[in-house]
Amino acid sequence: MRISFIGAGRVAHHLASALQQHHQIVQIYSRTWEKSQHLAEQVAAKACPSVSDLSSEIDLLILAVSDQSIAAVIAEVAPLLPEVLIVHTSGSTDLQILQQQHPRSGVFYPLQTFSLEREVDWKQTPLFIEAANKDHQKQLLDLAQQLSQRVYAYSSQQRLSLHLAAVFACNFANYCYDMSKQIVDQTQVDFSLLYPLILETAAKAAKNDPKTMQTGPAVRGDVNILQMHQAILADLKRPDLAEVYTLISQQIMQRHS
Amino acid sequence: MRISFIGAGRVAHHLASALQQHHQIVQIYSRTWEKSQHLAEQVAAKACPSVSDLSSEIDLLILAVSDQSIAAVIAEVAPLLPEVLIVHTSGSTDLQILQQQHPRSGVFYPLQTFSLEREVDWKQTPLFIEAANKDHQKQLLDLAQQLSQRVYAYSSQQRLSLHLAAVFACNFANYCYDMSKQIVDQTQVDFSLLYPLILETAAKAAKNDPKTMQTGPAVRGDVNILQMHQAILADLKRPDLAEVYTLISQQIMQRHS
Repeated sequence: MRISFIGAGRVAHHLASALQQHHQIVQIYSRTWEKSQHLAEQVAAKACPSVSDLSSEIDLLILAVSDQSIAAVIAEVAPLLPEVLIVHTSGSTDLQILQQQHPRSGVFYPLQTFSLEREVDWKQTPLFIEAANKDHQKQLLDLAQQLSQRVYAYSSQQRLSLHLAAVFACNFANYCYDMSKQIVDQTQVDFSLLYPLILETAAKAAKNDPKTMQTGPAVRGDVNILQMHQAILADLKRPDLAEVYTLISQQIMQRHS
Repeated sequence: MRISFIGAGRVAHHLASALQQHHQIVQIYSRTWEKSQHLAEQVAAKACPSVSDLSSEIDLLILAVSDQSIAAVIAEVAPLLPEVLIVHTSGSTDLQILQQQHPRSGVFYPLQTFSLEREVDWKQTPLFIEAANKDHQKQLLDLAQQLSQRVYAYSSQQRLSLHLAAVFACNFANYCYDMSKQIVDQTQVDFSLLYPLILETAAKAAKNDPKTMQTGPAVRGDVNILQMHQAILADLKRPDLAEVYTLISQQIMQRHS
C-alpha cells in the first residue's frame, strides 16, 4: 500500500515507522514544517508543505491528529482525495465524524501510550479497527494484522468505553506516579526507590483482578495512618494532594467495606 | 540467627521464606492458629499457641503485624523477651513506638507490595533499616544485605515520606486499575486488552519523569473528550468514578498549564 499521514506527533511517528516495514510511506503533512520534515526523513517519505499538495496517488491516508482537529482536517481533505480511504487513530472520536464528510472512512486505533523516547511492541499492542464498508474493513483488518497479533473490530461505542477505561488505567495511574514523585522530591528522597513497587503493582494488575490486589492503609481501614499521611501533606503545603488522598482513600474504603 | 515472627500475613510469609535461606525460623505466632500453623510448616518453624509461649532463645523477633497492632503487641511481648532485638516492618510507624517499651528495637521495612500469589524479587526490593543502637543497626544492616542489593539506613521521618509516596504510586495506582476494570466490566469489554497499556505506563514512569510522560485528554486540554467521558460515566451511573475523573483531570490541567 501507498500510505500518507496528516500529523507528525508520537502516534504518527511510531505508526509510520512500523508500517514502513511493509508499505511505502508517501507523504507526511503536519502544521509544523520541521516536524513533517523530521518524520518524513525517518520513514523515507516526502514532507508535504500544505494539505493541497497531498498526492491522491495513495491507498490510505492516516489522520494522526488530536481529537479536536479531526473534524476540521477531514472537512479540508475530503474534497481533495475523494477516492482515498481515510482513517483516524482516535479512541474517542466516532467514525461518523469522518463518515459524514467522506464515505471512504475508517478507524485504526492502537491502545497504547506512545513516547518518542520508547520503542513500541506492536505485536502485543491491541489494534481496534472500524469501517462502515466491508471492503474497507477487510483492508484495515489485513493492515492491522501485519502489525499486531491482537486486532479487533470494535464499534465507536465500544472503543469509547475502552478509551475511558484507558484514561483511568494509564493517564490517571501516571498522575499517581507524578504525585508520588512530587512527595519524595519535596522530602529529598530518591524516586527511583519506588521503581520496583511501581512495576510490581502493574504486573499484579495484569495478572489478577486489581480489586483483590488492593493493599495499603485505606483497604485495611487504618485510620491512624490515614491521619498521619494527611498531616504530612498539610506540612508539605499540598492541599491538592490531600484532596486526592481523601477522595481515593474514601472510595477504597467504601469499595472494600 | 534464630528468628521468630509475630504475624503470619503476606509480609511475614515472604520475609520468613526469604530469611529461611540463611537462618533458622524458630516460631510463628499469629492470632489465627491456622495461619500460624500454615506459615510454620512452610518455613520449618513451630507454630506458637500464645505470645507467652514465645521462646527467648532467639536473636531477633520480627513483628509483621498491622500498624494498628504494633503498640499493643510490643507492650505485651517486651517484658517477656527483654534480651531480644525486636523489629517492626512498617513504613509509617515511628521507631519510638517500639523504643519506648523496649530498648532493643529496630525497623526492617521492605518497600514492596506483597501478595501470596506472587514471588518477591528480594534482590531488587529496597530495604530500609533503623535502630537507635549502633550494634543493632549493624546486625540489621547485615541481615538486610543478605536479602537485597538495595539497603538504606533511613530515619522514621524519611520512611514516613517514602511510605506516603508509595501509597500514591502503588495503592492509588492500583485503585485506578480497579476503576478502569469496573468501566470495561460494565460495558462488556475485556480488561486484558488494557494489560500492555498498564505495563508500558509503569515502565515509562520507572525510566523517565512521570510529569513529562503524562498523556491523555486532560494534558492536551481536550474539553470535548472530557465532556464525552463524563457523559459515559453518567450513563453508567457512576458518580464515584465521575468525581475522581473531574478531580484528577483538573489537577493534570493545572499542573501542565
